[in-house]
Amino acid sequence: MKKHNFGAGPSILPQEVFEQSAQACLDYNGIGLSLLEISHRSKEFTAILEESISLIKSLLNVPDDYSILFLQGGANMQFNMIPYNILNEEETALFIETDIWSTRAEEETRLYGKTSIIASSKADQFKYIPKDFTVDKDAAYLHITSNNTIYGTEFFEDRDYGVPLVCDMSSDIFSRPVDVSKYHLIYAGAQKNLGCSGITLVIIKNEWLGRAKRAKSKMWDYSVYAKNNSLYNTPPVFTIYTCLLTLRWLNKLGGLQVMEQRNKAKAKLLYAEIDRNPLFTGHAAVEDRSRMNINFVTTHAEDEDKFLEFVKPYQIHGIKGYRTVGGFRASCYNALPIESVQVLVQAMQDFEKAR
Amino acid sequence: MKKHNFGAGPSILPQEVFEQSAQACLDYNGIGLSLLEISHRSKEFTAILEESISLIKSLLNVPDDYSILFLQGGANMQFNMIPYNILNEEETALFIETDIWSTRAEEETRLYGKTSIIASSKADQFKYIPKDFTVDKDAAYLHITSNNTIYGTEFFEDRDYGVPLVCDMSSDIFSRPVDVSKYHLIYAGAQKNLGCSGITLVIIKNEWLGRAKRAKSKMWDYSVYAKNNSLYNTPPVFTIYTCLLTLRWLNKLGGLQVMEQRNKAKAKLLYAEIDRNPLFTGHAAVEDRSRMNINFVTTHAEDEDKFLEFVKPYQIHGIKGYRTVGGFRASCYNALPIESVQVLVQAMQDFEKAR
Repeated sequence: MKKHNFGAGPSILPQEVFEQSAQACLDYNGIGLSLLEISHRSKEFTAILEESISLIKSLLNVPDDYSILFLQGGANMQFNMIPYNILNEEETALFIETDIWSTRAEEETRLYGKTSIIASSKADQFKYIPKDFTVDKDAAYLHITSNNTIYGTEFFEDRDYGVPLVCDMSSDIFSRPVDVSKYHLIYAGAQKNLGCSGITLVIIKNEWLGRAKRAKSKMWDYSVYAKNNSLYNTPPVFTIYTCLLTLRWLNKLGGLQVMEQRNKAKAKLLYAEIDRNPLFTGHAAVEDRSRMNINFVTTHAEDEDKFLEFVKPYQIHGIKGYRTVGGFRASCYNALPIESVQVLVQAMQDFEKAR
Repeated sequence: MKKHNFGAGPSILPQEVFEQSAQACLDYNGIGLSLLEISHRSKEFTAILEESISLIKSLLNVPDDYSILFLQGGANMQFNMIPYNILNEEETALFIETDIWSTRAEEETRLYGKTSIIASSKADQFKYIPKDFTVDKDAAYLHITSNNTIYGTEFFEDRDYGVPLVCDMSSDIFSRPVDVSKYHLIYAGAQKNLGCSGITLVIIKNEWLGRAKRAKSKMWDYSVYAKNNSLYNTPPVFTIYTCLLTLRWLNKLGGLQVMEQRNKAKAKLLYAEIDRNPLFTGHAAVEDRSRMNINFVTTHAEDEDKFLEFVKPYQIHGIKGYRTVGGFRASCYNALPIESVQVLVQAMQDFEKAR
């Protein structure tokens, strides 16, 4: 029996992605070969890569002066690659600290130039997205994390901050329409809304290719990926195919506006129950609540383990909160059906009655 | 109908790996979740990682003072990561140049310290493995590429060169028993003998962790991988599982001595036909002929396209040679059955008769 997968990532993908991936492992499109054994220079993989890039461009309405790159190493690798490629030693990168991921990004950046955390909600358990801060217009860029998986907050607005903007969208990319033109660089590990783990998407404004003047290693140079259409070295063929299948599903459903409506509906349903049910309390400030990662705790400490046990017969999986927050985290990524949220809400109501 | 896949990589894996990977995409071990949606912190993936490491250790008889790391980015990424982690600026790394991959490795190393190519067969189309050279015992290490995919030569001996040895075994790892103690660092992109593309294996002597004194980015620091058992960031879960399945298959067949016998038998069969058939000529020097990549050309230039066309009804796939060499490259990695080689030999004989 299929579980309701609320895991924070690697996370649920559409059921048809699982089925089509399985078929491709056996025989890709009837060519007599598994997708796992075909060359990254084959016409089959060339078509997979081109269609993936084309769907990303159309779904996100990416302007022409941007490049779409596929890299390995996850968002963590980008914490290094961004300053390595963009920041000159004498320049400053600004950060809004909203989670441990932005902390990591800032720490890595120190190796390459100057950094400044211009706003942080760390002292208040990252419960909100800071709103009052001053942006130094001489900075090379400002880095934000649009969705914060551990603490469940999210930026919903594509703002102009007066400096080039870099955004880690690992956990909410493709969950809503985005005005890409507001960003110089967007990056995202695939394993939430895009595909299985092992690939990272980078969308970069072409004028930023080759920006930092340091001598660069080939594999750490965005220009090399841009020039070689992400084929300078062997990419993870199967992983990129799972992205293509997910993008096709997104496109077929109607794209990002439809997806945003679905995600809003799921989040509304679950937050309503958290707010109504006296046994549960939400973590994040109401105005900054993430649609992707919905974090809540039990009002009575002793209920925490009980509720985790209680939901098991409901086939609910992956709602245990991150170790630093405790409680529960219901990740409601694109592929999670609203039926799964309904089951969780039912379990919360049944728990209340049973108490 | 299943093709005979002689592709150079990503390349054939055992049929049972395709089947078990497909099943895991649908439902992993009956847990009600696809392998593509499970957490890298789950007990399921922890078991996959631990069994993979354990099988690598036992199959290669890895001494206790080595670490087994899984990284992303392929061998190309290691061309940077090795000098970044090992070579101090004032030190020298030595190279034996036997293919464009060793050239790339040497070029990247220049960013981090001094380099010296102590032997090269480049001037003679990389037809042989250089044997006469002097190793400067003050060097930090010597780098070799054990198997050369494009030109079809291979080092078969685990030699002591008097300096620490680094080896790119991307295309022949697990094809024969290896005396790991002779090497300080072995690395290999998975996509030949280990699994599907998207993961790189690094086997490093512990005393080398943290060797180079430069400040390092977390994701480019072997010590971080060693300390976190390759789980500092999200690894490619599915890709590592394909490695585990391939390692299990290897183990079940009897390990690396059995594999070496199989590979010797396949290579012997095909080289014998190349040497017998007047229409074909081998590329590499006889004493350095690779068992993994068997390169040959047609004696008459006009036969090249004809033979490529001729083999199609035999369901032979992927034998076109690399663009810089031309002719044919029959890659005979571990998972290629001897029956596929027999079919190719038959096609060569039929081609001779039909001419």
